[in-house]
Amino acid sequence: MGHIDQALEGSLAGLTPSCPDRLREAMRYSLLGPGKRLRPVLCLFACEALGGTKDFAMPSAVALEMIHCYSLIHDDLPAMDDDDLRRGRPTCHIQFDEATAILAGDGLQALAFQTIATSGLSASQKVSSLLVLARAAGPEGMVAGQMDDLWAESHGGDGRLLESIHARKTGAMIRGSVELGGIAAGASDRDLQVLRQYGDAIGIAFQIADDLLDVESTAENTGKRTGKDQERGKLTYPSIYGVEDSRAKARELVQKAVRLVEPYGAVAVPLQLLAKYIIDRSH
Amino acid sequence: MGHIDQALEGSLAGLTPSCPDRLREAMRYSLLGPGKRLRPVLCLFACEALGGTKDFAMPSAVALEMIHCYSLIHDDLPAMDDDDLRRGRPTCHIQFDEATAILAGDGLQALAFQTIATSGLSASQKVSSLLVLARAAGPEGMVAGQMDDLWAESHGGDGRLLESIHARKTGAMIRGSVELGGIAAGASDRDLQVLRQYGDAIGIAFQIADDLLDVESTAENTGKRTGKDQERGKLTYPSIYGVEDSRAKARELVQKAVRLVEPYGAVAVPLQLLAKYIIDRSH
Repeated sequence: MGHIDQALEGSLAGLTPSCPDRLREAMRYSLLGPGKRLRPVLCLFACEALGGTKDFAMPSAVALEMIHCYSLIHDDLPAMDDDDLRRGRPTCHIQFDEATAILAGDGLQALAFQTIATSGLSASQKVSSLLVLARAAGPEGMVAGQMDDLWAESHGGDGRLLESIHARKTGAMIRGSVELGGIAAGASDRDLQVLRQYGDAIGIAFQIADDLLDVESTAENTGKRTGKDQERGKLTYPSIYGVEDSRAKARELVQKAVRLVEPYGAVAVPLQLLAKYIIDRSH
Repeated sequence: MGHIDQALEGSLAGLTPSCPDRLREAMRYSLLGPGKRLRPVLCLFACEALGGTKDFAMPSAVALEMIHCYSLIHDDLPAMDDDDLRRGRPTCHIQFDEATAILAGDGLQALAFQTIATSGLSASQKVSSLLVLARAAGPEGMVAGQMDDLWAESHGGDGRLLESIHARKTGAMIRGSVELGGIAAGASDRDLQVLRQYGDAIGIAFQIADDLLDVESTAENTGKRTGKDQERGKLTYPSIYGVEDSRAKARELVQKAVRLVEPYGAVAVPLQLLAKYIIDRSH
């Protein structure tokens, strides 16, 4: 098990017996399931790029994965995307039940904030981190993007709406991931600004890559149903810009991200490799 | 409109246009609906009892109501308690739709943490407050109680389970409410301990009173369906201890709460009146 999964495991193992077994199991099932751990990795790499060590940023990395994971649990619910398969396994509400899935998601959100509040960061780093996380996850960030995404499904939209949806639905948390890493490293405002720009670029690239995978891949590769975006008339990059232009746009954004962190030298190479991985991944 | 409702209104009005109108409306519908505002009031009274002014504690009061309100929205969902009436109005998922209700709840939880993180409290007060709130709301607190409450509905239980459920489901947030007020006032650890004991006492009294109301009251008075606890075999104080013993237990707890804050003198009278109100209220 990698360091990140160990930390995720530890955060749940640290819960007191006040947490019911079934709730803990449902949170664990979703949090420790197979996954890329993209947000934690981004957070740790950003911390190292800015001169910190991974340990400083691990609680923030864990918190980011908790928020991401809660959003997947709720997104999969029958009233939302109604998915029964996630990363090749039954979704939380299929494995447990709907009420448990709602509560597991709610619990993970609270636990994310608790994890940062009990970390070894300074009080001012904690407050900055908690604020970044709340904004990225909340009704001006991720939740806002999910809301408009559902709306667009039945009402349609254009490229501008598409970008605005993804800037909030996935972009805000990806930007937040590198920002939390920077805060843990004690980065200056100027460096945090660079990290945010890097995060914005790879956030859009990531979403384009995701849309492309849905068009081109098989369920076997992605571990979830594919072709379903098109099926339900979902607003996607390929549907608006076509496959080739979408691919070109993603490449351009990745190059921008790579250039942005170039000045930090060797310590920023992991961030550059990660940016490139985003458009090369097959799932 | 009272000060608390003004502050609740202001917290939503302060959201940027990144927050979709429909999401803001759903959050506003639930947050500004008729209600006792018990948690905000407890927070403000506790702050004043410990020598602070209400303004210090208002962001915490708002955050508490946001968490409470998100829990009601999710609790009312078809997969949870399946309620279509709340405080005399259609519940959020009836007024809007289920997906919107899930997201409005998720958004309010994040916004609660954001509200404290952007308050005028010191960094160390913010961290303490955020931690108390996360613990009270999360998988060792409110969410844990909800989980076990659902479990008890189908599996039954005894007085010990009942108390453990309510200590977390409603008790944790009520204790958290006075604790946040104390933190905003800069209270000492010893004073915070007294506030927590006061909170624990009225938390249980409040739950007993709620159970008694369900048995004795009409839908007209409470603004929600009544008699439904019994209907579904829910674990309640009257069902375990009988109506008279439950009433006696609640009175005893209120007297304990009143005595606990007696030493603070006149500034603590509002906390004493509130404790008494809890068992006298008719809805």
